[in-house]
Amino acid sequence: MAEDTKPAEKEKMTIVVFSGELDKAIAAFILATTGASMGMEVSMFFTFWGLNILKKNEGAAGGKGLMGKMLNIMNRGGTKRLKLSKFHMFGLGTGMMKQFMKENKLPSIDEFIQMAKDLGVKMIPCSTSCGIMGLQEGAFREEVGSLAGAAYFLNEARQSKVSLFI
Amino acid sequence: MAEDTKPAEKEKMTIVVFSGELDKAIAAFILATTGASMGMEVSMFFTFWGLNILKKNEGAAGGKGLMGKMLNIMNRGGTKRLKLSKFHMFGLGTGMMKQFMKENKLPSIDEFIQMAKDLGVKMIPCSTSCGIMGLQEGAFREEVGSLAGAAYFLNEARQSKVSLFI
Amino acid sequence: MAEDTKPAEKEKMTIVVFSGELDKAIAAFILATTGASMGMEVSMFFTFWGLNILKKNEGAAGGKGLMGKMLNIMNRGGTKRLKLSKFHMFGLGTGMMKQFMKENKLPSIDEFIQMAKDLGVKMIPCSTSCGIMGLQEGAFREEVGSLAGAAYFLNEARQSKVSLFI
Repeated sequence: MAEDTKPAEKEKMTIVVFSGELDKAIAAFILATTGASMGMEVSMFFTFWGLNILKKNEGAAGGKGLMGKMLNIMNRGGTKRLKLSKFHMFGLGTGMMKQFMKENKLPSIDEFIQMAKDLGVKMIPCSTSCGIMGLQEGAFREEVGSLAGAAYFLNEARQSKVSLFI
Repeated sequence: MAEDTKPAEKEKMTIVVFSGELDKAIAAFILATTGASMGMEVSMFFTFWGLNILKKNEGAAGGKGLMGKMLNIMNRGGTKRLKLSKFHMFGLGTGMMKQFMKENKLPSIDEFIQMAKDLGVKMIPCSTSCGIMGLQEGAFREEVGSLAGAAYFLNEARQSKVSLFI
Repeated sequence: MAEDTKPAEKEKMTIVVFSGELDKAIAAFILATTGASMGMEVSMFFTFWGLNILKKNEGAAGGKGLMGKMLNIMNRGGTKRLKLSKFHMFGLGTGMMKQFMKENKLPSIDEFIQMAKDLGVKMIPCSTSCGIMGLQEGAFREEVGSLAGAAYFLNEARQSKVSLFI
């Protein structure tokens, strides 16, 4: 009886966001926000170049030590700097894609991050990747959760109905 | 008893095909047709550059509005225009790969699409991506199913034993 | 009763390693070795450019026939030749990433392969990809298992809690 009355557990979805390109970021957030709207419990785990999506648009480039600073100046990140994986064409193709998104009433990545946050999607930066990329927690925007490692991700993924690596 | 007599449900596999490169297309179709041959019910969900794989080889480039037309002239698509993600080398590497596929008696992408269709693999273009890429339903070859959105994909994926993002 | 005494089956994880870039290889091995450390039974299935990770660093380039030899000279492979998918910058970015890995006490790819082997991770080259890339079994390092096809992978994947395509 007690079992019948406890709330049903939500189905989970877990997405590794490895890539930092605009098109892959759009795909990841469409899936995450759609899943959350369908009632799934969604975790996004950002690793490597995917961390760029979560970096603050303003302020210093971040990065620990001289090499961390250098890497994060070259690899500045932030939603406004994401490029297409193909046809970037010095900004022409990327600008066109953004225009198409607007015409199709699709949110921008900034709006997607806010929407994901509002829908309860967890956005977790991978702690090991932060180490490799010379990044500290302060580099990320406020919607972002605490850092966690690969074991955290795998523990979520093994309980998930859907796990994707993007 | 009634339960015992109903046919066992097939195990499902769902593949997101995001990439439009020849090598990733080959990998996706090898997995899809192998899964279907093993008795799995396979759905392929084509998004972004993956839509190029399903575009007609002949006829107009398609695309809605001036920008849609421009984008689809640059990003022409069709199985004959797919390139390797590495070592395309102005067609030399891509041609070599196709030669190797022939020598190893592997189907071409055109043959893979036909084989997938014959094995009952569903090939679904993502409706949101079609909007972003300025594409209309008529742009695709006849083997292709109706457009569907991310919610359709996630509903398939959550019932699947295997879900992959390629 | 008999059922109670048989050892519990391990949860499985299966990873397709399609990409041959240093950053994706690191991500794949972090996940594989973390999963194995958590008690999962992990299979890595190497296809296409991912095969480069498993090639011997020394000796002949391998490759069957004239075209196989040519392809494998251009596409030499081996852990020492892996590059970043972004910011390779004639070796500067790749060297920096390796430096960061060392500073963060992360294993090198050679060490990761050894660690994976020690943890019982199966590293399987895809037989079809070997055909397409003109590769023979002798091209791979000794930690690597026997070749297997897509049906082998799908059979592992359908039993797995987590399947990823990297």
